[in-house]
Parts: sequence; structure tokens; C-alpha cells
Amino acid sequence: MASLFAFDLVAREGLARAGVFHTAHGPLPTPVYAPVGTQATVKAVTPRQLQETGTSLVLANTYHLYLRPGDALIAALGGVHRFMGWDGPMLTDSGGFQVFSLAGGDGKQSLRKIDDDGVTFRSHIDGRTHRFTPEKVMEIEQNLGADIAMVLDECSAPDDYGYLKRQALPRTHAWAERCRAVHSRPDQALFGIVQGGIFPDLRQASAEALVALGFPGYAIGGLSVGESKAEMLATLDATTPALPEDKPRYLMGVGTPEDLVEGVARGIDIFDCVLPTRVARNGQALLRTGKYNMRNARFADDPAPINEACECYACRGFSRAYIRHLFVAKEILGATLLTIHNLHTMLSLMSDVRAAVVAGRFTDFRAAFWEAREGETE
Amino acid sequence: MASLFAFDLVAREGLARAGVFHTAHGPLPTPVYAPVGTQATVKAVTPRQLQETGTSLVLANTYHLYLRPGDALIAALGGVHRFMGWDGPMLTDSGGFQVFSLAGGDGKQSLRKIDDDGVTFRSHIDGRTHRFTPEKVMEIEQNLGADIAMVLDECSAPDDYGYLKRQALPRTHAWAERCRAVHSRPDQALFGIVQGGIFPDLRQASAEALVALGFPGYAIGGLSVGESKAEMLATLDATTPALPEDKPRYLMGVGTPEDLVEGVARGIDIFDCVLPTRVARNGQALLRTGKYNMRNARFADDPAPINEACECYACRGFSRAYIRHLFVAKEILGATLLTIHNLHTMLSLMSDVRAAVVAGRFTDFRAAFWEAREGETE
Repeated sequence: MASLFAFDLVAREGLARAGVFHTAHGPLPTPVYAPVGTQATVKAVTPRQLQETGTSLVLANTYHLYLRPGDALIAALGGVHRFMGWDGPMLTDSGGFQVFSLAGGDGKQSLRKIDDDGVTFRSHIDGRTHRFTPEKVMEIEQNLGADIAMVLDECSAPDDYGYLKRQALPRTHAWAERCRAVHSRPDQALFGIVQGGIFPDLRQASAEALVALGFPGYAIGGLSVGESKAEMLATLDATTPALPEDKPRYLMGVGTPEDLVEGVARGIDIFDCVLPTRVARNGQALLRTGKYNMRNARFADDPAPINEACECYACRGFSRAYIRHLFVAKEILGATLLTIHNLHTMLSLMSDVRAAVVAGRFTDFRAAFWEAREGETE
Repeated sequence: MASLFAFDLVAREGLARAGVFHTAHGPLPTPVYAPVGTQATVKAVTPRQLQETGTSLVLANTYHLYLRPGDALIAALGGVHRFMGWDGPMLTDSGGFQVFSLAGGDGKQSLRKIDDDGVTFRSHIDGRTHRFTPEKVMEIEQNLGADIAMVLDECSAPDDYGYLKRQALPRTHAWAERCRAVHSRPDQALFGIVQGGIFPDLRQASAEALVALGFPGYAIGGLSVGESKAEMLATLDATTPALPEDKPRYLMGVGTPEDLVEGVARGIDIFDCVLPTRVARNGQALLRTGKYNMRNARFADDPAPINEACECYACRGFSRAYIRHLFVAKEILGATLLTIHNLHTMLSLMSDVRAAVVAGRFTDFRAAFWEAREGETE
């Protein structure tokens, strides 16, 4: 039996890796894509349906659960796993990103004051004032009890070099140290978060500072927030080599099918993103090669499944015509079936990527992936 | 192998019966409760989840499917079973009830003109004008292809004796005859509908008229539309004895747990109602003994399942606190879990009722059912 939080590398090809991260809720094969269960539910699906899509790791949002129903309540009910009925590995973010993106009021009444001790913000639900410090966030995440918790970091604009260097990074590193100092839950791995915007020197300095503190895993934060795809990939190129080989690397809030393939090619092991579930509720079906809007009139009488090659529950049982009907008629089942399909698309891609790395044919897989996309006119 | 549409009586106790109705999609044990899949989906659940609740018969609404996506489209896609992914017995109503309740515009622009030939109405979706005749409804229902189809009837006020006797009943009987004359689909059983409001003599006359025409099953329509519970039960008392023993009897649009028990006690074999699925989406949990509003603050930290004695997926995996959280946070999963629970409540009740009739202990079952309800203060 591997020790808790050990990361076993199973195979490597270039920078791409296949591994196993050992959590208190079992071994987690990587690379892995985590569906997002913001409010302790991956929207529109049951835990059983989630499992059937191939999900192994679920993310829940600390900010949302702290506000509602409250982390102390979830702790009293046995933790977030039992609360939401998910018995596999889970991850919570630190809430930092939501404080900087969601909270702060409606503009007129904006309130988000950051200082070296922490950040004060307004709830997006009722406008009431709250304060996160590194110590408070550790208390919340330990109450939630996910297998992987994240340190509190400052998510600032990715292209403001001066602010990042002088303010955000020193604060982020000091907060990481404070988080590590108070975190005590032995069944929970606390990951550091590398920041530094789109600047290679800052990313490298941030990675060094965090590695010096020592964490069982490292995240790359502050990407997919408005920078170009080329900037994101260049930032990964500059960052992952500065992170230890023997610890998992988590690219936060990313991404699309192509982001998964390109992230793995740059040494990323863990991904999460709301994209597949969010677009599903708007009627968009993801394929490896592109996407469809299922409301499109051309699907009205189409007896084919969303994707002939897909083996998900939605594609094995239902036509495009039916799924279009569900969206046109505003039926909940449309969101459920597309969520199942979109998650399966991401998770089967991740599973195929892992198999390719293990078999030493990831380079070919990546080339074929891009070739298939270029063949699509969608 | 029993012949199609045969109704085998397995057991009787008083007027209560347990039977098997043979449909083109397999034998249907009765008494049976049919969840309502208005737009070719039982709202918020997949066909697989529906099956897991114990569902054997699903109702779809002819009026809704005619308007959207259209019965010809559904026929071209292989019929309503294949369209919605339900491989068991199905039933379609005639659309008559919806024409009289939903259609007709917004009051100011009301348009619903009934004559002896048929009824002209406005779509509740876009206000466009449509016309149902007995022949048109048979065409639609045969396109949909459910195992049981209903004749077109006139649903008028249940307490207007003069109108019922002089207009609605003669028209309903003439329409039933016209439906029977043009219905030709050999894999579909066409049921007649007894009308007559709350008046025993009209109900008996209606039953006689329909039995004289001869159908493989008989429905009792026009109840649960505003009359008192006592009036409804008295109407059943007056009607079922006028219907043949060897044909199934279907009480349309009814009802609650107590309606099921009392309906069976009066010789009813088939029920359908939107109640369990509709109230689920509003946060109401059904029990045999009453109901809870799951949004209630007293459930905020309640670790118990909705019903300790219930074996449904929602009750085996989730706390009241979690389900309340889902409703407060406006998460789709709340509707899904409560729909599963409420359907399971109705279907397990129906299953227990059937077992009691088969075992010759329905009288005791019925007494215990009422005793348990009186013990509840909810």
C-alpha cells in the first residue's frame, strides 16, 4: 500500500506523464480531469451518473460552500463527501478566485479590500461582508474535508508585471506559508499555487518560493482568465520545468479538449473546468473535434446520436432530434443528458491520453487529435 | 402467451382487483400508477431512473406532442417509445382535457369553439389555431404509437347537469364511436372514456353507452377537476359497477396516495397524475402519511433521509439537509432527487396495494394505511 499523498509516476513521454496520486479516498490515476461541483453538486447529474461518465475526482468550491450551507454544517454532517454522496477523491479550491471574480457587490457598491492579512469581500448572494485570511480558509477547507485542499492565493490581473512582482506574489507566497503552518488535517493534501501572470521570470520565482516551502502537489493558478491561448501555453512551458517531477501538477480552471492535450504535453497532471457542464445547460454538445448547438433546427429530425462514436448514456439511447426537442421544450432532461455527454467526452479523452502516455504513443495521439480537429468544418 | 389486450384477473377482494393487462410492450401488472411524461419526458429524470423507481407504465400528452415536436416527426423517428427511450408500456391521453384546460389563449383572446364535429383551439405555446376532431386525434395517437390510446371526449364542468346530459355526453359518445371507427393500429388498445360529472345517473348512462360500443378498457374522466373528494369517491361508487369486470378501468388524472388506495377499493386498475413530479420540483416530498416541504429551515442540519423507511436512490444516499441545500441553492439535482423519491413513494404504495390484494389482505392494508395517516400531525 502506497503512503498517503505519494505520487507514483507510471510512464513518461517527453514532458507528458501518467501517474497515480494516493488520496484518502483511494488512488487517483493521472492525468485526470475534475468536473466542477460548485455547490456540492455537479449541476444536473447525480453522483451515480457522474461515476458512469468516468469521473474520478470532483471539485467543490470553498467560497460557495462557506456561504451556503456553511462549512461547519457540512463538517457536522460528516464532510463534503458524505454531504454530496461522492465517495471518491475530492478537491476544494481556496475561494480566492471567486473572491476576486464573483464577490465584491454590483460595481456601485463594490467592496473587496485586500491587505497583507487577508481579503474582505461581499457575498454575491446577500451582499453581506465576509473576510478570508489564510487561517480562515484552512479552517473552512478542513471542515469541508476534501482529499486535496488549496492554499489561499491572490488572483490579480495576469499582465500587470509591477503589481504581481511587488504585491501579489510576495503576498501569495506569505499566505501559502501561513496556510501550511496551520493546516493539520492528516487525510488532506494541501497544494501550493504558483502565480505570476504571463511572465516566465515571475512564474519561475513563484515556483521556487513554493517548492522551498514544500507541498505534496503544486497548482498553476491565474490562467484562463483572459490571456491568449499562446500566452497560456508559453506560461506552462516556463512553469512546469520549475516544479518537482515527483509531485502532481494541477492547472486550475482549464479547460477545453485541446487544453487537456496541450497541458498534458507540458507536464500537467490535474485539470478542472466548468466548461463541459456549463455549456451543456445552454444546449452545447462537446466533441473532441468541436461542438454543436443542439437547438439548431437542422437537428429537428435527426435520428443519429450526438456523436456516433460516443458510448455515453445519452448517445446510446437518444437521438439529436430528441435532445433538441428537450431544449426547445425547456425540459430539465436536456441539461442532464448533455452534461452526461460532455463530461464523458472530456473524461474519455483524458483516459485515452493517459493510455497513450502509458503506451508511449502520446506524440502520435496528439498529432492525430489535431489532425482530426483540422478536418472539421464546424 | 396471452392475447394482446387481454386482461387477466389474478385476485379480487371486494371491488379491489389485481390483474395483468397485456400490451404490445409486455404484460402490465395492475393496479398500476403511471408517471406523467407530458413532453415525452417525465420531468427531471432519465428513463433509467424512472425504471429504478418501479415505473411500468408512462403517460405522454397528445396535445403537447402534437404541438411540439409534432406527431408526424415522432412517427418518422420510430414512435414515442423510441423517441423518449422508454421500452415499456405507454399510454397517451386524447388531448381533450388539455384543450379544455390549457388552450384557448389568455382570456382576452380566448378561442375554444366546440361543435359536434370537433373543437377549435389556440396553442398555449404560440397562440396559433388548431382543430381536433375524433379522426384527427386518432391519427395523432396512432402516429405517437403508445400501447394504450384514449378516445377524444368533451371535458366540461362536472356539476352542470343540463349541459352534460344534453350536450357533452351525447357528443362524447358520438366521438367515442367515431374514434373506434377510424382507429386501426393493431398494436394499440383504444380505451373509451366515461363522463357525466358528479351525477350517478349520467355516469351510469355514459358507461352503458361506451360498453355498448365495446372497448378493451374504460377510463373514468372528468374527475379531480374541482369537485370534493367525497363527490369523486361517490362518483366512482356509482360508475365502476357499470363497467365490465374483465376490462381494465382507468381513473384519469388521479391522484394522491389516498386516492390510489380508495380508487383500488372501488375497482380502479390504472391511475396517472402529475402530482408527485410537479410537487417534487417545488420542493415537496411525498410520504404515504403526508408531505414535507424540504425547504423548511428545520431540515437545515437534519442528517436523516427524507423517509427512513424508503429504499429509493434519494433516501439511500442523501440527507434532508443536503436536499434542502439543493433547493435553497436552486440546484437541478434537488428536483431530480425529489422526483425519484416521490415516484418511488407512489409506485411502492401501488406495488404494496397489489401484493395486499393478491394475498387477500387489502382490507387490513387499507385500514392500516388510514390509521398511519391519522397518527401524523404533518
